[in-house]
Amino acid sequence: MGRTAILLISCPDTKGILAEVTGFIARNGGNIIHADQHIDFQKKIFFMRIEWELSDFKIPDSQIGDAFSPIAQKFKMEWELHFSDEVKRVAIFVSKHDHCLYELLYRFKAGDFPGGDLRLVISNHLDLKELVERFGVPFYHFPVSRENKQEVEKKELELLKEEGIDLIILARYMQILSDQFVNQYRNRIINIHHSFLPAFVGAKPYHRAYERGVKIIGATSHYVTEELDQGPIIEQDVVRVSHRDSVEDMIRKGRDLEKLVLARAVKWHLENKILVYDNKTVIFD
Amino acid sequence: MGRTAILLISCPDTKGILAEVTGFIARNGGNIIHADQHIDFQKKIFFMRIEWELSDFKIPDSQIGDAFSPIAQKFKMEWELHFSDEVKRVAIFVSKHDHCLYELLYRFKAGDFPGGDLRLVISNHLDLKELVERFGVPFYHFPVSRENKQEVEKKELELLKEEGIDLIILARYMQILSDQFVNQYRNRIINIHHSFLPAFVGAKPYHRAYERGVKIIGATSHYVTEELDQGPIIEQDVVRVSHRDSVEDMIRKGRDLEKLVLARAVKWHLENKILVYDNKTVIFD
Amino acid sequence: MGRTAILLISCPDTKGILAEVTGFIARNGGNIIHADQHIDFQKKIFFMRIEWELSDFKIPDSQIGDAFSPIAQKFKMEWELHFSDEVKRVAIFVSKHDHCLYELLYRFKAGDFPGGDLRLVISNHLDLKELVERFGVPFYHFPVSRENKQEVEKKELELLKEEGIDLIILARYMQILSDQFVNQYRNRIINIHHSFLPAFVGAKPYHRAYERGVKIIGATSHYVTEELDQGPIIEQDVVRVSHRDSVEDMIRKGRDLEKLVLARAVKWHLENKILVYDNKTVIFD
Amino acid sequence: MGRTAILLISCPDTKGILAEVTGFIARNGGNIIHADQHIDFQKKIFFMRIEWELSDFKIPDSQIGDAFSPIAQKFKMEWELHFSDEVKRVAIFVSKHDHCLYELLYRFKAGDFPGGDLRLVISNHLDLKELVERFGVPFYHFPVSRENKQEVEKKELELLKEEGIDLIILARYMQILSDQFVNQYRNRIINIHHSFLPAFVGAKPYHRAYERGVKIIGATSHYVTEELDQGPIIEQDVVRVSHRDSVEDMIRKGRDLEKLVLARAVKWHLENKILVYDNKTVIFD
Repeated sequence: MGRTAILLISCPDTKGILAEVTGFIARNGGNIIHADQHIDFQKKIFFMRIEWELSDFKIPDSQIGDAFSPIAQKFKMEWELHFSDEVKRVAIFVSKHDHCLYELLYRFKAGDFPGGDLRLVISNHLDLKELVERFGVPFYHFPVSRENKQEVEKKELELLKEEGIDLIILARYMQILSDQFVNQYRNRIINIHHSFLPAFVGAKPYHRAYERGVKIIGATSHYVTEELDQGPIIEQDVVRVSHRDSVEDMIRKGRDLEKLVLARAVKWHLENKILVYDNKTVIFD
Repeated sequence: MGRTAILLISCPDTKGILAEVTGFIARNGGNIIHADQHIDFQKKIFFMRIEWELSDFKIPDSQIGDAFSPIAQKFKMEWELHFSDEVKRVAIFVSKHDHCLYELLYRFKAGDFPGGDLRLVISNHLDLKELVERFGVPFYHFPVSRENKQEVEKKELELLKEEGIDLIILARYMQILSDQFVNQYRNRIINIHHSFLPAFVGAKPYHRAYERGVKIIGATSHYVTEELDQGPIIEQDVVRVSHRDSVEDMIRKGRDLEKLVLARAVKWHLENKILVYDNKTVIFD
Repeated sequence: MGRTAILLISCPDTKGILAEVTGFIARNGGNIIHADQHIDFQKKIFFMRIEWELSDFKIPDSQIGDAFSPIAQKFKMEWELHFSDEVKRVAIFVSKHDHCLYELLYRFKAGDFPGGDLRLVISNHLDLKELVERFGVPFYHFPVSRENKQEVEKKELELLKEEGIDLIILARYMQILSDQFVNQYRNRIINIHHSFLPAFVGAKPYHRAYERGVKIIGATSHYVTEELDQGPIIEQDVVRVSHRDSVEDMIRKGRDLEKLVLARAVKWHLENKILVYDNKTVIFD
Repeated sequence: MGRTAILLISCPDTKGILAEVTGFIARNGGNIIHADQHIDFQKKIFFMRIEWELSDFKIPDSQIGDAFSPIAQKFKMEWELHFSDEVKRVAIFVSKHDHCLYELLYRFKAGDFPGGDLRLVISNHLDLKELVERFGVPFYHFPVSRENKQEVEKKELELLKEEGIDLIILARYMQILSDQFVNQYRNRIINIHHSFLPAFVGAKPYHRAYERGVKIIGATSHYVTEELDQGPIIEQDVVRVSHRDSVEDMIRKGRDLEKLVLARAVKWHLENKILVYDNKTVIFD
């Protein structure tokens, strides 16, 4: 398959949107290969992800936006245009746990994330420096304390800007980012929480799952918002536990969930398959 | 939501299909509420299910087919047109196992299958007569032997024709239907097989799963074709087993799978969400 | 397999418990067919379920307790003795939802619960009277209002006592039982909650799951305690949902979970496979 | 928890086995921390895994076998004695796929397999040499052709003997081992097959799953026997697919299953939790 363009759209639901958008692409010689729409009937919002081949498309990349603009205005659309060969620049934040980091390093290296370029890893500890550098990825150490937090975040943001980072992955990063930080990367910070949210929001979810005697534990990847563990959920998965599982067993089983649930969220984000609205996600997978 | 029309389409993939179909609906005042397309890139086939509200649609029901015909011809489409208030007439075939029958009787009664009208139950045994009649559904007893099979099928087909049956559900019916029978209801006979096909095709799958020592068992709903257990798969599901599970335990656990996997297939069929091609199904769920 | 005895034990963990208990059974000619132990290392508690054939056992049923007593005292055991042909008398409480009731009625009828005798159904509404009576089960109507609640519960308890009820199943019963009521049936009232507890404790969990945008929904069966939805969890299960699922879809998918998760809990309870401690369950399945 | 001994037993089922074994441990001061038994009632075989703390055990390690021997003889037991600080020496065989290898390298490094010492990796290709050596593990290249296969296996076996290898893991090794080879490591070679066995035995299972249109794919870890993909199944897991998944998508989804299913089997083997009989496994997890 050749190069493609991807249009992500949301707008008030009304008649004729689909016909107008597909007509625009067809008239200009585009071959639609994926079209996925969704309507939230309760809130009357229309969502679409549409992808078409560019080989015979008559409009050059740089002018597609302008050409599409009248349709967007007519339907009051919020929209994004992406190209299949776009590469997002990625930063990973970690603390001491290595399982999610490891999985991501492997996947970037193995070519599982063609839409992402892993530029750097930031950590508040030095434990994972050697591992990261063994993969040839720059490692930055930013120790964080209650006192220096604001200042450290400022420096981190400078580095992220310098490197043109588009996506931040919190791979079991044990610090809470400030609202100012989050605001600069709205819907572009993916966190992995080690519980089946909204059960066990906050710290030590496996311990609390053990205390409560649940029979299933889970992991949740979500975009980070100002409210802790309350951002739009991207993906969740679960695994059975029983009275035989100690907290340590749960932590061990949970690790396998966490890394896969995080990797799926990163993949969908890099493939422009996620639309966020109303603190929820539409996943066009 | 009001009355809707549903168009199921498959045709050779080419440019402009989506634009043309959605344009047709939009031009005539239809409000598209679901549009789901799929392309088999290997075989270059385009599939679509599109559903629109009829309240403001300018073309009367009976003329939609004719109006759409030129588009269908242009793209060499195979297509079906359905309406949301259509009701398919359903017959269930059973032998002695009651769990799938029970589930279906309940769901028809509970309103889970608004697109289906359960007209009758046919069995080669009398065991379930009382149960069926308690639900107010006509029960027909057709004992089958090697000798009378052809003749019995003929009578069954007459009854099915008389009652205008559109869909046959084999709810653990322990007889193999002849090719002639199957031919008259192509892609309109749904069977439940008590294994994770294609593992354990044929008889006594739980016994063979036990012998093989598998750690997961399954159930499969599929359309019936001439080849035993080889028809297009509609739905599958699985459950864990261990060395602790005897054959009887597997049968018991399997029952819960079978009835749900069968019910899902029936639901999708009645909602016109299934397209069959190449001995496979596209499920627009 | 012949008649068996089942011993459920919990006690402070120490050396020699298993040897002593199995020695007692072996010395008296019992053939152990299941032995399952568990130690909570954190709390240092020992749990065991042991089942043995009685055909050659030298102690008559009525004297087993006395014979075992010295061992029980030595290890400060809490213990229960059951026999495989014991039958617990069961009452189901319902309101208007019929899917869990239906599943239970079917299973009692189909012989899935040999350890239970369904004596009666109690409801605060009349909607399900006909269904219950069609199964030949006595139906009692106890309308509940804020004013008469205490009095109604008193009458219900009288009826339950008269009928010698051992187990109460709340099959989507939409009333909260008083502490006094719960106290009389400690660890003998099983409820089904339509969420993956502890997420969405309380009312309208599917609506809240929809609002929160979770990707998986669940159901939880648990023993009822004074605190709402906080009792010991017996079983949980989950199913995937997506942005395509409306609240109604979730409710529909959830129904299939609820009925199976409730049925599993009932089965384990009737087979004396559950030990409760510390607001958690040990399930010897 | 301190050092423990683990006894794995299978023998004809009869009365008194459990009492005798636990009595032996208790009399000698052992504190049983896990005891798990299973009876195959069809074949009348008794299985047990029992683990006890050695801190106060009166018999020195080297004499436990002799001391236990009379009991073993009395009940005609096959038995193995292990100690919790035993370390099995492990070799991994790979070809070109790296995902399973990677997962195993990570887990050995992360301390997930305390019972295993990864001594070396053998491959018929050079592709993964760098990766293996980056982890500090010796890499051996044994190119295999139809002509030299016998000779190569001989050399491999010499190396394995020299290194005292106890367990061989085939981490997507694309060669079939000869019967002679397999015989030397009976129940000590673990393979990962990329299908839900017994569906799709042999080559290219994902392609065949795609062709068949299944709705769920799986992975299976098993001990290697002379018959291809027919050895005792240790663990299986599955993931949903749909018509939207191409063969490539299935391969990608399958990779995540394969690595976890293989890792679980390796973990159980290293913890002496697996008993093999009758081409099946009993997993005391």
